[in-house]
Amino acid sequence: MAKEIYNFSAGPSTLPKSVLVEAAEEMCSYKGSGMSVMEISHRSKLFETILEEAKEDFTKLYQIPAEYEILFLQGGGSTQFAMIPLNLMKNKKADYIVTGQWAKKAFQEGQVFLDARKALSSEDKSFSYIPDLSAFSVRPDSDYVYICENNTIYGTAYSSLPDTQGVPLVSDISSSLLSKPLDVTKYGLLFGGAQKNLGPAGVTIVIIRKDLIPEETLIPVPTMLKYKTHADSNSLYNTPPVYSIYIAGKVLKWLLSLGGLSVMEKINQEKAALLYDYLDQSKLFYGTAEKDSRSVMNVTFLPKDPALTDVFLDEAKEAGLVNLKGHRSVGGIRASLYNAMPIEGVKTLVQFMEQFEARYNK
Amino acid sequence: MAKEIYNFSAGPSTLPKSVLVEAAEEMCSYKGSGMSVMEISHRSKLFETILEEAKEDFTKLYQIPAEYEILFLQGGGSTQFAMIPLNLMKNKKADYIVTGQWAKKAFQEGQVFLDARKALSSEDKSFSYIPDLSAFSVRPDSDYVYICENNTIYGTAYSSLPDTQGVPLVSDISSSLLSKPLDVTKYGLLFGGAQKNLGPAGVTIVIIRKDLIPEETLIPVPTMLKYKTHADSNSLYNTPPVYSIYIAGKVLKWLLSLGGLSVMEKINQEKAALLYDYLDQSKLFYGTAEKDSRSVMNVTFLPKDPALTDVFLDEAKEAGLVNLKGHRSVGGIRASLYNAMPIEGVKTLVQFMEQFEARYNK
Repeated sequence: MAKEIYNFSAGPSTLPKSVLVEAAEEMCSYKGSGMSVMEISHRSKLFETILEEAKEDFTKLYQIPAEYEILFLQGGGSTQFAMIPLNLMKNKKADYIVTGQWAKKAFQEGQVFLDARKALSSEDKSFSYIPDLSAFSVRPDSDYVYICENNTIYGTAYSSLPDTQGVPLVSDISSSLLSKPLDVTKYGLLFGGAQKNLGPAGVTIVIIRKDLIPEETLIPVPTMLKYKTHADSNSLYNTPPVYSIYIAGKVLKWLLSLGGLSVMEKINQEKAALLYDYLDQSKLFYGTAEKDSRSVMNVTFLPKDPALTDVFLDEAKEAGLVNLKGHRSVGGIRASLYNAMPIEGVKTLVQFMEQFEARYNK
Repeated sequence: MAKEIYNFSAGPSTLPKSVLVEAAEEMCSYKGSGMSVMEISHRSKLFETILEEAKEDFTKLYQIPAEYEILFLQGGGSTQFAMIPLNLMKNKKADYIVTGQWAKKAFQEGQVFLDARKALSSEDKSFSYIPDLSAFSVRPDSDYVYICENNTIYGTAYSSLPDTQGVPLVSDISSSLLSKPLDVTKYGLLFGGAQKNLGPAGVTIVIIRKDLIPEETLIPVPTMLKYKTHADSNSLYNTPPVYSIYIAGKVLKWLLSLGGLSVMEKINQEKAALLYDYLDQSKLFYGTAEKDSRSVMNVTFLPKDPALTDVFLDEAKEAGLVNLKGHRSVGGIRASLYNAMPIEGVKTLVQFMEQFEARYNK
């Protein structure tokens, strides 16, 4: 029998068990075809249906208006860091709010192609907070304002959006994707890698307002890095990651069957509250993100005695609570509580931490 | 029970049954971890081993010398069409031999960034042959010579390589990848999408001579499109398509267990000969590629009466011989005989064609 574990990995990360069980059952013959989804053409009826349903389910879950395009791309968020300036630039100016390593990488990539301004940053305190957005003023001729809405490494998240005065807002939602409802109309472009809340690594979702897709780019851009290429071909310009989209489609249906994103949000808040409430009264552990900037998806914390970090990680692993190690750039402990993490997983973790505290806080 | 079928799809295409069975068994718990490979971090020991073994097995199969780098990338061949000029250009000149739609797309993408010359082409006869390579003369200051070694749509393949006079040879081997041994040292760069002979769509293999990876590119290039980014980080700059690499790794082990690429080549030649021998004596069907340019992987043919094409495709499908339709740009019939197509599949197809001929060639 498979070992019973809870997987707190920050990504690739835990998926709904029912999705994996179905995928295993269908591996050798999808819908009685005698073929695996890995073996079917991306231009077959079978795959066409998978792709269309995934788009429809996305549209339902986020209530995406008709003036937005949903694209299934490859290359991860890091490829978006370049596609965004390359496609959106008109005045060759953009404003970035830098709240972590990924926003910083996006900012640096922006600098390669245009006048990227670091409008706000929280690097002064190791990205442990979201800057006061009232201090943000946009350059009115900026092509876009860039934010990373949930910072996986530091356990922070935006609780409101900057006022961009009509300049398109671009948001990296990789690690909060589908974790709660959002108002798509507030954004010009939203993107996220699948490997946290949606499915296997290898597919990236882009939701873009159609009028932001340029007919012609300002400078020569590789065909595969033009949004227009993918918008014009329904994400089928070349062979897409067929199997990853198939699994993502199953996760979307799982979310709908739960009741959609409002229900998911409630569950996610409950899970995060369990852990934060414990941390706030603990004598041994403390959260590293500032309270008003806390992420519901990634909870970062430390024991007061740093030497206990490795002891904790080892003992947790023994107890079946795995992948709790913080990002290699910051260390510490991180529990990622993505959609597919059941509340029992968080309860088991808190219980384990209580016992650990009783043993080590002397 | 699953329907018994033979899948002649040109890609994504048939995979070894044993690989799919293993993948299904391991779906919910890989190596007793309690996690699917889709759920494990790309920086975990488990995945590190998968990636390292895949590289080692590739090296064994192709006998790749130490001066070459093996990269696991995203974005398919179409992304390589841009990465090749963007990374390899020094003199901003390159020579292309255009033998089909994919070589043509690569040529057109090359034109965006440098002086791309169409050195030879077989477009005059609908790409039904490989041009006489003795007519090829390289521009000595070209940065590379580009070829597409197997032309999936037209069923043609190179039987020898052009003399590039020391200019690096770049070859798209997407549809002949791992189908036979090759001398890597004859190439500067080899690439192929996985979705024909290697695994699920979403991972692209690049084998590149290390001295061709520039420290700095001539013009600004997106970080994700620099070979250096991926070479420096062992293909782990950002989250790679973990699950696709895992399946590819299994296919590599399957190839090794068969006895490697010389054995595979012999089997592939046997399969293709079965079908071509039948075609050459048929009164109803004829092959569309010129004889000395025939591909071992993709066999394209037509019935003498074009109206029989759809009848054939329908009846073949009924008989469990699926995905025999030619590429949408050319029509007709195409049987892709990739590594994982068993010889029984080809025998069954030939038998079916004989019976079809007996019925319809009156």
